[in-house]
Amino acid sequence: MSLDAVLSRIDADLPAALDRLKALMRIPSISTDPEYKAECARAANWLVEDLESLGVQAETRQTPGHPMVVGHIDGDGPHLMFYGHYDVQPVDPLELWNRDPFDPEVEDTPAGKVIRGRGANDDKGQLMTFIEACRAWKEVNGTLPCKMTFFLEGEEESGSPSLVPFLEENLAEFSAPDLALICDTGLFDEKTPAITTMLRGMVKEELTITAADKDLHSGMYGGIAANPIHVLSTALAALHDDQGRVTIPGFYDDVPELSDELRKQWDGLGFDEAAFLGGVGLSVPAGEQGRTGLEMIWSRPTCEVNGIWGGYTGAGFKTVLPSEASAKISFRLVGQQDPKAISDSFRAFIRSQLPADCSVAFNITNGAPASVMATEDPAFEKARLALSDEWPNPAAFIGCGGSIPIAGYFKTILGVDSMLIGFGRDDDQIHSPNEKYALESFHRGIRSWARVLDALT
Amino acid sequence: MSLDAVLSRIDADLPAALDRLKALMRIPSISTDPEYKAECARAANWLVEDLESLGVQAETRQTPGHPMVVGHIDGDGPHLMFYGHYDVQPVDPLELWNRDPFDPEVEDTPAGKVIRGRGANDDKGQLMTFIEACRAWKEVNGTLPCKMTFFLEGEEESGSPSLVPFLEENLAEFSAPDLALICDTGLFDEKTPAITTMLRGMVKEELTITAADKDLHSGMYGGIAANPIHVLSTALAALHDDQGRVTIPGFYDDVPELSDELRKQWDGLGFDEAAFLGGVGLSVPAGEQGRTGLEMIWSRPTCEVNGIWGGYTGAGFKTVLPSEASAKISFRLVGQQDPKAISDSFRAFIRSQLPADCSVAFNITNGAPASVMATEDPAFEKARLALSDEWPNPAAFIGCGGSIPIAGYFKTILGVDSMLIGFGRDDDQIHSPNEKYALESFHRGIRSWARVLDALT
Repeated sequence: MSLDAVLSRIDADLPAALDRLKALMRIPSISTDPEYKAECARAANWLVEDLESLGVQAETRQTPGHPMVVGHIDGDGPHLMFYGHYDVQPVDPLELWNRDPFDPEVEDTPAGKVIRGRGANDDKGQLMTFIEACRAWKEVNGTLPCKMTFFLEGEEESGSPSLVPFLEENLAEFSAPDLALICDTGLFDEKTPAITTMLRGMVKEELTITAADKDLHSGMYGGIAANPIHVLSTALAALHDDQGRVTIPGFYDDVPELSDELRKQWDGLGFDEAAFLGGVGLSVPAGEQGRTGLEMIWSRPTCEVNGIWGGYTGAGFKTVLPSEASAKISFRLVGQQDPKAISDSFRAFIRSQLPADCSVAFNITNGAPASVMATEDPAFEKARLALSDEWPNPAAFIGCGGSIPIAGYFKTILGVDSMLIGFGRDDDQIHSPNEKYALESFHRGIRSWARVLDALT
Repeated sequence: MSLDAVLSRIDADLPAALDRLKALMRIPSISTDPEYKAECARAANWLVEDLESLGVQAETRQTPGHPMVVGHIDGDGPHLMFYGHYDVQPVDPLELWNRDPFDPEVEDTPAGKVIRGRGANDDKGQLMTFIEACRAWKEVNGTLPCKMTFFLEGEEESGSPSLVPFLEENLAEFSAPDLALICDTGLFDEKTPAITTMLRGMVKEELTITAADKDLHSGMYGGIAANPIHVLSTALAALHDDQGRVTIPGFYDDVPELSDELRKQWDGLGFDEAAFLGGVGLSVPAGEQGRTGLEMIWSRPTCEVNGIWGGYTGAGFKTVLPSEASAKISFRLVGQQDPKAISDSFRAFIRSQLPADCSVAFNITNGAPASVMATEDPAFEKARLALSDEWPNPAAFIGCGGSIPIAGYFKTILGVDSMLIGFGRDDDQIHSPNEKYALESFHRGIRSWARVLDALT
């Protein structure tokens, strides 16, 4: 049977697959920092060459930002589209890494072998699981299993500014697939694979509060002049009440309660809150009181400050009253929360907090709504069973706290449903120092895609 | 009469005096930044050479930080000590300067000629007013007017860590003077000279709040994990109530109310609050409600955040839940407030604000109490009359919001009283970009010291 042959081929080719992943990870394709623009292009070109080696007609397609990698290959059966992203997060603080983040290597750890480096999981390791499954399939069968479109983005970690215009300009090219497969999510736990069927949306904001028109000496002006760090701190503190709820008026208007059915299913997953928090040195859920841990991270909206700066932050001390103070703030959205409406309410709330003589500038915004997958499509049950064949435990339908707006865009712009399958673990430290991907995630991930492709075609 | 000859000599020598000031200002002696250590030593050596040219026996004296410049010269009459500091504040944000901060030049402005550059006022311009007065005196009379000790510090802008040990180790050398003259304060307004008789003290603190033991992805952990920026913002917001009062328990215990006499004197100064605030783009006093503007900046204690940082602060966006967030906070003290007690109360207050799983580290602290001058000494009235002869309006006894702990140390360690006379204007932008010193401040400042030396000797 060809699936067994493909799986055997995957096992035999694992060392070479690892070398290919390491080659891709060595390219520091940090999309949010303009300094790495050429490296993003280099990663895109690397992928084009690799897809061409599978017989895919691939090319980079220019955007105002980083290029898209697009590939097409003809075949029988359903038309599947695959999405991943080749860009990665910044690596600071660099001194907290145990190695050069762009010189990946396999390390032995108490929990097994891991590939360590930026992008090991998010998303280079994950996207290569699919490409390696295709490679093994082609080597065994001479062709890929069906007609396919590859769509690899280079701006996912910086808000995907080119994505919507690109899809809208290329509707005919991308509207045809029967289903999109997205590999950018996680396992439920190391033994339990998952199809992610609920994704939180996102609104990003950056603001600067200005008081005096110049930095002031705190001896001369301290006690009489407005201090924008105080004003910012007070406004940020006011964003939550003492129950951990967001105080912005109307914030929860479009937030649905969990269905009894889904609540029962999630309760049955045996989520180990103490272990989840303990893994990062915490012990007490700090979110909305009266909610379970899985609700907090999967089905409840959040407001988090991701960065703050103002005044003198160097070595020593400078007794300055700064002219301005800034923060980066992101919201995770659920249900029908509208990004534009949330952004508007947030800005009105901040303006309502400003005392005399203070002004606010909003420097950045972008957003994407939450999305819920079409699990009534029989392909979901087929894929769930295929994953269950590969892993120790049966696969589960789960939520995800992260925001992968691509699924929403595929649905609203292209009319294509998405299925999200990924193999990351909670402790992979994506976006943090020492990001890693379990070797088992990579190996079983490739085998899982072979099984899913077999089940869907 | 010799005073007239000295004043004439000062007028004739002004261009050369300006050249000397510019030479000193070209040395970037930023004491708080270790990178500029050699430049601080260079400024000290420059001053030693200049004092030697006046016949003063001068030398640098090493400390664990930057050197002290000490000079002695014998003479008749009283023994006066002069204090100034040769170190300067950092210059960031550099892009807000209209010129290289260490390439000073005289500029024409609508308010008259100014010397622009870091240290123009604080304190290189000010300390050179005294040295230039001495130079003119010596050139006219062949000697300085009396026995003198020069004591020029290089760590004033970084908390004077070596000052107290140095004075304690050299008690015999520095306890002899009858009076210390300190030039590091301002005019009341451009027509009204001042002797500063009340100085606020200072406590500096830097703290870091830590939650998780690593940076987290806000998608995976947002809504369940404690966010140290929220915790820090909430704690900082809680430091003041809605009346602008500091909420730390016991903070106001040792804060005296203004005497009726001093209140009447200050009310008579005609402080133009609207102009003072308007000069920096503000219009409403943001401090304690129910206090006058002069009280807020001269006789009331404050708590100000001077810097804050945490999370991702670079270009673009990173949806991180940081592991830690930090702030630099300073207090201005008045009356009998004890720096150690204020620091202890502040730390206890911050600890009381911490939720579960969060810890705080206090990285920096140092402090000095407020000080009140010995205005009953007849020298104060003599000096006040001498200043009144030089300027359009009579001189006033005023308060100062800034902290110049040296006067307190001279009194408590050496038993020497201090007299603070300076010529800065409120809009000199000390500690800020585009620091300047009015040419009139420099010129009349030199002449003022000649008159004061004449009156006291």
